[in-house]
Amino acid sequence: MKADVLSIDLHTHILPPELPDRRAITGYGGWTTLEHLSPGCGRLMIDGKHFRDVCSRSWDPARRIADCDATGVAVQVLSTVPVLFSYWAQPRHALDLARTLNDHLAGVVAAHPDRFEGLGTVPLQDPELAIGELERCMGELGLRGVEIGSHVNAWNLDDPALLPFFAAAERLGAAVFVHPWEMMGRAEMPRHWLPWLVGMPAETARAACSLVFGGVLARLPRLRVALAHGGGSFPFTIGRIDHGHRVRPDLCATEIDAAPSSFLDRLYLDSLVHDPRALRYLVELVGADRLALGSDYPFPLGEAVPGRLVRSMSDLSDAQKSRILAGTAREFLGLDAPGTPGDPGDPGTPGTAANPGARR
Amino acid sequence: MKADVLSIDLHTHILPPELPDRRAITGYGGWTTLEHLSPGCGRLMIDGKHFRDVCSRSWDPARRIADCDATGVAVQVLSTVPVLFSYWAQPRHALDLARTLNDHLAGVVAAHPDRFEGLGTVPLQDPELAIGELERCMGELGLRGVEIGSHVNAWNLDDPALLPFFAAAERLGAAVFVHPWEMMGRAEMPRHWLPWLVGMPAETARAACSLVFGGVLARLPRLRVALAHGGGSFPFTIGRIDHGHRVRPDLCATEIDAAPSSFLDRLYLDSLVHDPRALRYLVELVGADRLALGSDYPFPLGEAVPGRLVRSMSDLSDAQKSRILAGTAREFLGLDAPGTPGDPGDPGTPGTAANPGARR
Repeated sequence: MKADVLSIDLHTHILPPELPDRRAITGYGGWTTLEHLSPGCGRLMIDGKHFRDVCSRSWDPARRIADCDATGVAVQVLSTVPVLFSYWAQPRHALDLARTLNDHLAGVVAAHPDRFEGLGTVPLQDPELAIGELERCMGELGLRGVEIGSHVNAWNLDDPALLPFFAAAERLGAAVFVHPWEMMGRAEMPRHWLPWLVGMPAETARAACSLVFGGVLARLPRLRVALAHGGGSFPFTIGRIDHGHRVRPDLCATEIDAAPSSFLDRLYLDSLVHDPRALRYLVELVGADRLALGSDYPFPLGEAVPGRLVRSMSDLSDAQKSRILAGTAREFLGLDAPGTPGDPGDPGTPGTAANPGARR
Repeated sequence: MKADVLSIDLHTHILPPELPDRRAITGYGGWTTLEHLSPGCGRLMIDGKHFRDVCSRSWDPARRIADCDATGVAVQVLSTVPVLFSYWAQPRHALDLARTLNDHLAGVVAAHPDRFEGLGTVPLQDPELAIGELERCMGELGLRGVEIGSHVNAWNLDDPALLPFFAAAERLGAAVFVHPWEMMGRAEMPRHWLPWLVGMPAETARAACSLVFGGVLARLPRLRVALAHGGGSFPFTIGRIDHGHRVRPDLCATEIDAAPSSFLDRLYLDSLVHDPRALRYLVELVGADRLALGSDYPFPLGEAVPGRLVRSMSDLSDAQKSRILAGTAREFLGLDAPGTPGDPGDPGTPGTAANPGARR
């Protein structure tokens, strides 16, 4: 394939250049703040505790565009850093932060509409407020959907409280990108980055299983959902998951009759698995039509040259590579759908004429 | 291949027919008991609360042998049910239970030495007591090693407290079969069997990562370790794990310089993935030499006809199938090693002349 095939990177994170402490406004702590240490270097802090070092790639559109130009990325899809979901906070305060983040993100997109698309964040701890902000994202802000966490405090994604939100996403044609956060087991495996290496893939499997077993995907046939990190451990344990559904229907088939694997073609997965054998497994399992380039830019656990793995795979056809590098993201985001984002008349559902590559 | 190739099932569970409540002896509750409801039907209970229904396959050697005869299993490797690890209990009480379980298990093996091999259990919350019981298992009881949990209370498997135990296992030539238990996230995802479907694969990855990142495998080059359920999510996320080691050596390379994937040939994996594509991935990743049939008999999440998946795979050679169905377990268990089990002079280390199939 041509080396200059331009790609859409579905999985990138962005911060506003200023993240002041909201303790003064809200009267309580726990908020993530950004301290600038030196030009181009910052640090995310929570209540004065170090969370993560970040660099200007996290907030500087010009630097991001320069990186994209150097690596053949045509479009970055921007979403916030999961620590900022702030589902733990009081809903009105989380809404206020979400509005700030979404306004910033939409501003970056509007300033460079040919280089960025955006996924907003919503205060899911209050589904009604979340729906309101989702409508704003899809309407006046011109975003393509939202990034959400793998769970919302004590709710898994199939909690009945969240169903109206997912129904709204379906109605609005909003793409829903699920990102792991607040990783299970993080307190029990503090060393060796295991919350990121073990907990995150498990979180994504938890989210996928909840959407599948809880009947969310079954109830909302046009809802578009993507999972980060190649779907975490979900695609690779699908045999075990199907088997569980088969042998313990009393536990697993309470909401769905069909095998969990039959919902694989309802999920999009990003390509971030860092291994050609794993990516090949995903292609075999779900097909290139469900796989979209995602790099986790600008974080170190991501793919430094987005798409390098996909491009390196000699057993993928040019059509498959092109689909993974750009086509699937276009479909997931509804970029080819007629009408404007947020138009309930045509949410860019997979399988429409505008999406000839869709399987459904 | 011939349909009648006999197999060794590395992953089966057994209970003694009686499990009385130890509350009266120990003065505290939490013990797992077995209630017999009707002939052939029982129920595991914890403090009067239902844990799991079991049938006589769990304790009746004759019924197990009949099942083996019907499914072409030559040898079952017996290990206890993880809920009985009882790492939470006072060490001397856990030792007492382990001795009871091991005596029972060894008795079954001794009564049918051509049909059963055994892996004992040890009170890992007290490594010194655990070493003593391991020595008894490998000596007078004639077992092949032990089954252990994916963590021990607050210790991950790389906790310095456990290193003497693993060193003893290496010295004694004891096979160590790691089984997930006390699954991370179980409180947060109570529905749809997710502790088993999501938590267990994550637990196994946690155990594998701890053994790798914590330097246990590096320090003990002859230690033989197997992981249940195809290694859980570990083999499928190895690209992410390697990448983490590469980009955050401050967190991940504190004990090992080599890539985590370089330790894949130090781990045996059972074949219990319930999907030909996943098994094919494992064969590609680690080779048939590291894969051993495991069925989780007699539990429903297991493979009802042990080896059916392996036998069904037309892209595996007869030699690969034979290796997975029996050869790898022979090597892992040290069945072909000269000398008796527990002979420190020859622990049946992979790579000896007795194990020509070994990769190392």
